[in-house]
Amino acid sequence: MPSRTDAEALDRADPLRDLRSRFMLRHGLIYLDGNSLGPLPVGVRERVAAVVDLEWGRDLITSWNTHDWIGLPARVGAKIARLIGAPADCVVAGDSTSVQLFKLVVAAARLRPDRRVVVTEPDNFPTDSYMIAAAARLCGLQVRLCDPLDVPASLAADVSVVALTHVDYRTGRMYDAAAVTAAAHDVGALMSWDLCHSAGAVRVDLDEWDADLAVGCGYKYLNGGPGAPAFAYVHRRWHDDLDQPLAGWMGHAAPFALEHDYRPAPGIARLQTGTPSVISMAVLDAALDAFEGVTMDELRVKSLALTDLFIALADERLATHGVTVEVPRDHRHRGSQVCLRHPHAYGLVQALIARGVVGDFREPDLARFGFSPLYLRFVDVWDAAEHLAEVLESREWERPAYQARATVT
Amino acid sequence: MPSRTDAEALDRADPLRDLRSRFMLRHGLIYLDGNSLGPLPVGVRERVAAVVDLEWGRDLITSWNTHDWIGLPARVGAKIARLIGAPADCVVAGDSTSVQLFKLVVAAARLRPDRRVVVTEPDNFPTDSYMIAAAARLCGLQVRLCDPLDVPASLAADVSVVALTHVDYRTGRMYDAAAVTAAAHDVGALMSWDLCHSAGAVRVDLDEWDADLAVGCGYKYLNGGPGAPAFAYVHRRWHDDLDQPLAGWMGHAAPFALEHDYRPAPGIARLQTGTPSVISMAVLDAALDAFEGVTMDELRVKSLALTDLFIALADERLATHGVTVEVPRDHRHRGSQVCLRHPHAYGLVQALIARGVVGDFREPDLARFGFSPLYLRFVDVWDAAEHLAEVLESREWERPAYQARATVT
Repeated sequence: MPSRTDAEALDRADPLRDLRSRFMLRHGLIYLDGNSLGPLPVGVRERVAAVVDLEWGRDLITSWNTHDWIGLPARVGAKIARLIGAPADCVVAGDSTSVQLFKLVVAAARLRPDRRVVVTEPDNFPTDSYMIAAAARLCGLQVRLCDPLDVPASLAADVSVVALTHVDYRTGRMYDAAAVTAAAHDVGALMSWDLCHSAGAVRVDLDEWDADLAVGCGYKYLNGGPGAPAFAYVHRRWHDDLDQPLAGWMGHAAPFALEHDYRPAPGIARLQTGTPSVISMAVLDAALDAFEGVTMDELRVKSLALTDLFIALADERLATHGVTVEVPRDHRHRGSQVCLRHPHAYGLVQALIARGVVGDFREPDLARFGFSPLYLRFVDVWDAAEHLAEVLESREWERPAYQARATVT
Repeated sequence: MPSRTDAEALDRADPLRDLRSRFMLRHGLIYLDGNSLGPLPVGVRERVAAVVDLEWGRDLITSWNTHDWIGLPARVGAKIARLIGAPADCVVAGDSTSVQLFKLVVAAARLRPDRRVVVTEPDNFPTDSYMIAAAARLCGLQVRLCDPLDVPASLAADVSVVALTHVDYRTGRMYDAAAVTAAAHDVGALMSWDLCHSAGAVRVDLDEWDADLAVGCGYKYLNGGPGAPAFAYVHRRWHDDLDQPLAGWMGHAAPFALEHDYRPAPGIARLQTGTPSVISMAVLDAALDAFEGVTMDELRVKSLALTDLFIALADERLATHGVTVEVPRDHRHRGSQVCLRHPHAYGLVQALIARGVVGDFREPDLARFGFSPLYLRFVDVWDAAEHLAEVLESREWERPAYQARATVT
């Protein structure tokens, strides 16, 4: 079994160990919830102060030009593009993931007007399922639920778009995205990936996968702050024909000409709708600098090493207490999180939080731990497993304080 | 003609004169563009620092509960409600005005399933026209354009919803909202008001008007910062039946139960879609404190006095230079802005900006000036007219520097 000394040795040998200094993390905190809300990157404070005091406060309305607020959605999109294997001009930031997914599903349906089915999986993240259903209802489409382990079985010539989440938000299971995309293309359907639990954590190669569409979240592994703007990707082959349903003025070819009729902007810009949320967008922009000089290959290597270590420790020290590891062992199917199943998962998570080890709980019996390779150390992983073993051995999770349910978990 | 001394006397007698200290406005600046982007309220800096450093940076994911991030859309909505004559639990903040309008138009169409027409006016703000057309297309509705001076002429039993903007973004012309709402109801249609150029500037009495639906913008007279979250209002009579098209997880009855099927939250909460933009929402929340202890009646009295003064000065000093006042003289039809028409409006606006008098230009020949009663003084109005007279007399607008067009105007 790996010892704490082994973990320390892994940290010393870690080529990414200095990246931790790019985040404000208080001493003693082991933050394994970056898959829900990434921590604060160091550059954000200064950038927010500049946007508020100087750009808004001093330069006021002129900042749309002088500080290029109008270009933020494209600039932030381009920064994200590098992390998801996409050309810089195929990604735009804005709105929420839910709204972006709605736009893409309707746009996909319009690109395949003779097909009446949209395929997703039964255990997709709820807002994805809701928005896919909402889009299908407005477009008169039928939703077909596929088996995530056998997507091709649900595909046929009636499918307009396949909309799946690359990494499962509970189990951390990851699709073979290139293979699923190819299967969708085999029946003439478009492929849309939700990258909420992938972007910034695992390798994403939209271009290589030949994916048509993608959406993702700015506030998880991209560390863009609570409710950060989302992003959307559209493959260049669809830029000219993309007809998205929330066709607002910011997606117009000439927003400030204030023309009576809508004319879509060229390229990905047409995916914009209302006025961009400048302050939130600037925060995300600054946060993305934490990825400067790092490749997703390097991050993926470390992410797998972190989850490998946690899984090894869970097998050795936690299994005897009735804890099972839910994430796939196979690297090809593992995201950047580990999910443990235990009948008292809720109390376990609360007891860990009280000890400064922050993970989260997902109904009904899952304790979820995200491993961001940007700021986590191997000793953090070792210490987290140690705390969890202690909580299980002492039955600390039984304390009434750890059983009370909060509004939001 | 009113003299500068008269303006100074008006300022001394102004019961709202101290409110100016609630804003960061640099010495010498005359900011007449608060109808495009409100200035920075003093409390915002501190609030942003707290949200970023303490809530996000220190308390991380727990802040959804401990700092009630999850309650922000409702809390901010309740603050706005007071300013627009609505019950606190009938307004929610979030998304952009464009997205909110889309939700309401589709929801209205679903409340009137046997009617196939949505009515708006030809010169509505472009993104309103685009989003109404976008919603109509998805719902199979026809858009009927009405004469803004005779809305009832376009109303009949085939109309599901009438969607208009209360105050015209160019001319400042304001509808008799109660009368138009009554006319819509007479034919059994729903009435939806866009309050972008009204909220925080003129009296809005959604409850008294008996309006069904409304949307508005957080970054104009509400001073919520660039791209601030928008807001939406739904009359209580529709809360149970409202079926909005962007049914995301934040509008679910139990967002964190992560249920497979969508169940709308009770009341206005169901109008939410994705994760709220916490930082932008907190900025808007802090900004709204600038309205503390002031009624919209008091603000309206001052707003009219400001625009009365500017119109009087324009008539006396600018008309001889070919400038015409486009805003209605009748108080009942005037918003909180004055629009001047002049063939060289673009150059005039640029010359004024160089002198520290910030208004904006709207194609093809309009110079637009917003008068926010929260922070403008009567001497500002007098000085603005003086500068404008000087620019016209000296033909300063002819300088090449004032003819070059910026990307965003």
